[in-house]
Amino acid sequence: MRWSKKDVLDIESLSTGEIELILETASGLKEISERPIKKVPTLRGKTIVLFFMEPSTRTRLSFDIAAKRLSADSISITASSSSIVKGETLIDTARNIEAMRPDIVVLRHSSAGAPHLLAKKLSVSVINAGDGMHAHPTQALLDMLTVREIKGNLAGLRVAIVGDITHSRVARSNILGFTRMGAEVTVSGPPTMIPSGIEDLGARVAENVDAAVESADVIMMLRIQKERQQRFLMSSEREYSIRYGLNRTRLARLRSDAVIMHPGPINRGVEIAPEAADGPFSVILDQVTNGVALRMALFYLLAGGKRNADSD
Amino acid sequence: MRWSKKDVLDIESLSTGEIELILETASGLKEISERPIKKVPTLRGKTIVLFFMEPSTRTRLSFDIAAKRLSADSISITASSSSIVKGETLIDTARNIEAMRPDIVVLRHSSAGAPHLLAKKLSVSVINAGDGMHAHPTQALLDMLTVREIKGNLAGLRVAIVGDITHSRVARSNILGFTRMGAEVTVSGPPTMIPSGIEDLGARVAENVDAAVESADVIMMLRIQKERQQRFLMSSEREYSIRYGLNRTRLARLRSDAVIMHPGPINRGVEIAPEAADGPFSVILDQVTNGVALRMALFYLLAGGKRNADSD
Amino acid sequence: MRWSKKDVLDIESLSTGEIELILETASGLKEISERPIKKVPTLRGKTIVLFFMEPSTRTRLSFDIAAKRLSADSISITASSSSIVKGETLIDTARNIEAMRPDIVVLRHSSAGAPHLLAKKLSVSVINAGDGMHAHPTQALLDMLTVREIKGNLAGLRVAIVGDITHSRVARSNILGFTRMGAEVTVSGPPTMIPSGIEDLGARVAENVDAAVESADVIMMLRIQKERQQRFLMSSEREYSIRYGLNRTRLARLRSDAVIMHPGPINRGVEIAPEAADGPFSVILDQVTNGVALRMALFYLLAGGKRNADSD
Repeated sequence: MRWSKKDVLDIESLSTGEIELILETASGLKEISERPIKKVPTLRGKTIVLFFMEPSTRTRLSFDIAAKRLSADSISITASSSSIVKGETLIDTARNIEAMRPDIVVLRHSSAGAPHLLAKKLSVSVINAGDGMHAHPTQALLDMLTVREIKGNLAGLRVAIVGDITHSRVARSNILGFTRMGAEVTVSGPPTMIPSGIEDLGARVAENVDAAVESADVIMMLRIQKERQQRFLMSSEREYSIRYGLNRTRLARLRSDAVIMHPGPINRGVEIAPEAADGPFSVILDQVTNGVALRMALFYLLAGGKRNADSD
Repeated sequence: MRWSKKDVLDIESLSTGEIELILETASGLKEISERPIKKVPTLRGKTIVLFFMEPSTRTRLSFDIAAKRLSADSISITASSSSIVKGETLIDTARNIEAMRPDIVVLRHSSAGAPHLLAKKLSVSVINAGDGMHAHPTQALLDMLTVREIKGNLAGLRVAIVGDITHSRVARSNILGFTRMGAEVTVSGPPTMIPSGIEDLGARVAENVDAAVESADVIMMLRIQKERQQRFLMSSEREYSIRYGLNRTRLARLRSDAVIMHPGPINRGVEIAPEAADGPFSVILDQVTNGVALRMALFYLLAGGKRNADSD
Repeated sequence: MRWSKKDVLDIESLSTGEIELILETASGLKEISERPIKKVPTLRGKTIVLFFMEPSTRTRLSFDIAAKRLSADSISITASSSSIVKGETLIDTARNIEAMRPDIVVLRHSSAGAPHLLAKKLSVSVINAGDGMHAHPTQALLDMLTVREIKGNLAGLRVAIVGDITHSRVARSNILGFTRMGAEVTVSGPPTMIPSGIEDLGARVAENVDAAVESADVIMMLRIQKERQQRFLMSSEREYSIRYGLNRTRLARLRSDAVIMHPGPINRGVEIAPEAADGPFSVILDQVTNGVALRMALFYLLAGGKRNADSD
């Protein structure tokens, strides 16, 4: 299988073959970050623009380190450096960036679909680093990479995603990704945070959180956002922890080979107990390590290898 | 001709020979950005500080990419990282930066003359990236580069600059640059936005916008700033577009080989109609592409070539 | 002597041998910044995260340039990119950073002890770039480097530190550093700004500023912070200058081989007269130049040399 896509915008548009190629490539690149000299010249002379219109340090840092480990030049534009958008449309801004000849634009944006719009209008490669409540494909891919490393295969696994499904682009992309690769995904959480129609993405809904997590091979806890928590009449963090969190009681009932995930940043003692986050089942920090490898893989596939080979 | 200046502060201080050397050098460096590996080692080990005391993403991005394409190390200091100036004078701040041994300091500042002050006090090279309402020489140089690419020569061309001339450092630097190279520059716009004495820079003033643009080889539209627009009793964006904008009516009457320019970011439908900005006469995105090449040329002339050759 | 420490957190934890190794290494690396090509490949493929939770441009710039001159990749995270800490503990944030496999984390934080906490929890090297009112070891080390360059030796020198001792991490680290190396340190300033117990660090307290500075080989003036000045009933900047500043009168009475230092940024005419800051005794800008060399030395000792040699 050879990579042929210009962009990585969402999980829907990736075939199982493409997902496997991405995960294989990431696995191969991962050891670079474990070397004493954590850098290869593969993308020397490539320019990657990290265009983050929503605040993010963690994800931006991961993309930035990924670019540097491949010797690409990366340049960050953040929302606070707002002059770029004084009255200008997103497309005009993006066309200006494109005119400076980057190889890849990584876009995070508060509006669902913004990366797709950019990808359509520009000839440069676009990676979606999170768009509104729509998609966060690199997070889903790094999550799949992490599970695959431990379980060998995603097919047949039972994945439970627990929390505020409605507002989570991480949940949406993971539902699509894991089901695409043959896993069964169950979502659970406060009834007001389970969107109607979520089954259409391939997930099943469990009203009972305990049942969902007890039978799962993989338990993915979502960050609860405090402002939303209040709106949804959760009287306290403690109540959320009891009713929906991966607390000590639930932790004790997990399968003995369960894997605990969280996209971070975690609220200790709210959606996840310290014992769960820091315990032997947790792969939360592996997710972060794999995030760098996964983003290296996307940069490599989009800007490297083939095209390079063609032209040099 | 060999480059001998320490700084690039304004157009006045550049001879026609120096301008031609800059444009030639930029033309030569431009193809680097079109290569699969967009990078040469020319300025490896040089340090360039991008000191932006006024918000700017577009110009800073252009300088940053230019530095990286020549393998220089670039470091940004922005106004928001304000600790550098807590009670300290600009000169003290600059002397501190100089003590870290950069090769070039690029300064954007809200006060006219700030880069000149720096250049006088420091032995390091200074490039003016825009100072108050005074000058924006790199913009004028990239505009000249863009026109020269298309027209072959600047001498004898008719250039119309339309909009808020009073507050535009872009207009001032372009008037000086194009007239220096033998072009005729006409300015036009709302009477309150044409400063008295602008003729002293070499421009003629046209009260009639239509006349100015219809006969021009090059039409440069300036960004209208909304707060100013209100102050100058422009009742609406629509009214501005009708009276002074490059709207569809005016677009239809341009010469068949006219060139449309704008320093960006554009206000679509205000000073420039989408048909003009996106149409075949527009070179707005070429300006952006040339901006990188032009800044590479300045870095090369100030920090590279000769001095390097002398010392290694 | 070989370097064996994982972290550089404060002066207390450094032996005299380690301090000398750091200063020697810095002296050796200093000439790199004077070359036409100011870069060596020593730390190629190393990742340095500059994690600045308190605003700082000057110190961050120095670390950043130091990293680049050794060919390390440096990435800045600042407090304004606040998403990294939404509800997350410092340790969780740091563990996330560590999971991306940096070699060194440089931390500035408003809480005393934060770098120590990080160093204990992480296996990656940590450098303290200033923690609350506790310590600023890299400043003290660069100050010692600067004095040693001029005086040859620190033992037996008389050092006067004048100003707001109470709130100064620079003062604390310098008292510890200079006394450790055999110098005598005297502190002086407004009585409300001399903390009780400062003698326990090894400093003597001089009530009379004149006496302290007149006999000193090294005079280190501290920045007075205007908000504090008011609180401590200093009626005006002029009064501070007369009573505690290195004004023209005091300047005239210094020893003929005195050295004037200031950690910057200076308040001209308040704690230091322009004649003192810019005069022949001043080494204020040498401190800045040495800051880059000193930080290169720390990066080299923590991430380079030995470990590199072991693994390649």
